[in-house]
Amino acid sequence: MNQYSYDEIDIGHKESFEVTITEKMLDSFKSITGDCNPLHADAGYAKSEGYEGRVAYGMLTASFMSTLAGVYIPGERSLIKESKIKFAKPVYPGETISVEGEVTDKNETFHMIVLKVTMKNEKGEKVLRGSMDVMIRQAK
Amino acid sequence: MNQYSYDEIDIGHKESFEVTITEKMLDSFKSITGDCNPLHADAGYAKSEGYEGRVAYGMLTASFMSTLAGVYIPGERSLIKESKIKFAKPVYPGETISVEGEVTDKNETFHMIVLKVTMKNEKGEKVLRGSMDVMIRQAK
Repeated sequence: MNQYSYDEIDIGHKESFEVTITEKMLDSFKSITGDCNPLHADAGYAKSEGYEGRVAYGMLTASFMSTLAGVYIPGERSLIKESKIKFAKPVYPGETISVEGEVTDKNETFHMIVLKVTMKNEKGEKVLRGSMDVMIRQAK
Repeated sequence: MNQYSYDEIDIGHKESFEVTITEKMLDSFKSITGDCNPLHADAGYAKSEGYEGRVAYGMLTASFMSTLAGVYIPGERSLIKESKIKFAKPVYPGETISVEGEVTDKNETFHMIVLKVTMKNEKGEKVLRGSMDVMIRQAK
């Protein structure tokens, strides 16, 4: 886990990681949220609707924005204030997604950074675009 | 699970449900995302930082927007295109959160509804405000 302070982060700073989406993640997300929508739970239904199989919950894919802020940038002292998410393409279990955050702005008054978030599949296609306003908590 | 079609939904339509946030949910969310930030994982650390205890991941609380769209409104034929989330107050395990969605706009061309999302704790304090653009898939 990174521990960047506000001053250690410059505009243009990038952090990234990869994650493979699994059926188990979809099952766990369903257990947490109670979202039993068959597009995510039932491969047969999803196929009959024109998809390759169970579609990952958009908000599950978006959950890796939590990891991006809380582990990578800024890491420990992260506090997400706001996030905006656009879902561009379906994500399927078995796919490996790259998650990248780039600092596009800083606000000294609020000790806040703005992260542009891009997630891509193995074909290089964007599956999610977003942004986050992340406060960097000061040490007590 | 509801199965509203585009035509069955009017502006002003509201749906809501309640959910109690549990430590187990935080543990599951950590397992899925790998977000090991101690603010969410370590009660002692969170208290030393001025919080009441482990703080629920913001993106975990936001995950119930998936349930709101995928189960309640429109339900089965939901496809979230975009979401905007503002985190207003910390949420703690043990708290019961009300999740409400209200249709504020409709777009016939894209078969899309706009949902205003409000989540409140038991004291009636807003913990999350947001919105979602949700496409309603047509039957194949």
